[in-house]
Amino acid sequence: MPPVVSIVGKQNSGKTTMLEKLIPALTKQGYRVGTIKHHVHEFDMDKPGKDTWRHKQAGAAIVALSSPTGLGVIRETDRECSIEKINARYFNDVDLVLTEGYKKAAMPKIEIHRSAVHAEPLASPDKTWAAIVSDIPVATKLPRFHLEDINGLASFLIEEFIKPAADESQTKLKVNGRSISLSPSLEKAVRQSITELAELLQADYSTIKELTISIGRDR
Amino acid sequence: MPPVVSIVGKQNSGKTTMLEKLIPALTKQGYRVGTIKHHVHEFDMDKPGKDTWRHKQAGAAIVALSSPTGLGVIRETDRECSIEKINARYFNDVDLVLTEGYKKAAMPKIEIHRSAVHAEPLASPDKTWAAIVSDIPVATKLPRFHLEDINGLASFLIEEFIKPAADESQTKLKVNGRSISLSPSLEKAVRQSITELAELLQADYSTIKELTISIGRDR
Repeated sequence: MPPVVSIVGKQNSGKTTMLEKLIPALTKQGYRVGTIKHHVHEFDMDKPGKDTWRHKQAGAAIVALSSPTGLGVIRETDRECSIEKINARYFNDVDLVLTEGYKKAAMPKIEIHRSAVHAEPLASPDKTWAAIVSDIPVATKLPRFHLEDINGLASFLIEEFIKPAADESQTKLKVNGRSISLSPSLEKAVRQSITELAELLQADYSTIKELTISIGRDR
Repeated sequence: MPPVVSIVGKQNSGKTTMLEKLIPALTKQGYRVGTIKHHVHEFDMDKPGKDTWRHKQAGAAIVALSSPTGLGVIRETDRECSIEKINARYFNDVDLVLTEGYKKAAMPKIEIHRSAVHAEPLASPDKTWAAIVSDIPVATKLPRFHLEDINGLASFLIEEFIKPAADESQTKLKVNGRSISLSPSLEKAVRQSITELAELLQADYSTIKELTISIGRDR
């Protein structure tokens, strides 16, 4: 699973604008970035009147739109999906996931502060705060970046989150008793499968050391 | 994986309108339906100006919108995803997937024909054609339904596709040597994992009889 960092901040502090600058800065250095936007209101992503929108209105539990250049999938949920689940299921082929608006979740956070909008940053940064970005000096022991220092913040994300996550434990796969060599992308996919299964088993992924799946074909 | 049936027909024959009637007819009988719309033009699902749209414009490879009632994920692709892959990855918890607009794919098809728009149905139904729906009598050996006979068509889908797919082979799972009992939803998830791995290994899913994954934790 890729590392997740949340971009947080008070209302209108410029979180989306910061993401619009950070994403190309990271992409330019060869990293694939995914984003997750937290939305507390009525879900609303598709375009009214489009075929997929009509399918959804008619009661489809999941709708997908597939084209040569993109794939979109919208599903109804009875409660909010955890970031971990979204990450494991949909983001296994990116190097970093940046989320917007998960102020209360446990993942590392970078706060965006803009003095023209708010005098102070969020009241009490806890230990999940990884850095503060502001256009004025802020009294903090955390790493601090100026609102215009996009490359500095991108380097921070690369060094602190992307590179350490690349050094992960080793996964091996046997099919019908024969070892299969795993490319990095395949290793990622295997890891993702285990994470999903662990979640379904309500087990901790890290407690699974070996997993055997037998598939009955003989009846 | 749920069964897939494609709703096909000439331009403007009423495919989406038929789906708008079929989906609630199936849902009312307790089945979860997913849909996949084939789109050959520029990919276009999100609303311009929304935060996720802005993330995507900035170069994010994958964007998600998550709320308590829904989850939407849009990813860029360098070629069109196969129906099998979309189905395995995103639709493991529905009972039937209805696709719209995959006229040339190998899955079973139901053609919608409306005489006010086209004198004849598609020229040469092949062996993937499962039924024809029309508002006029059509000379065919295939099962035929009137355009207004939504319940008849829904029953056909249930009997011919949903029920047979529920009878699948058995999957067993061991974690750290201990057998884990699998609920139907978990069995589905395990099957999905294997299908994905088989695809990554470029193997045929049906050739995998046992699969062992060892996870290194000791270095």
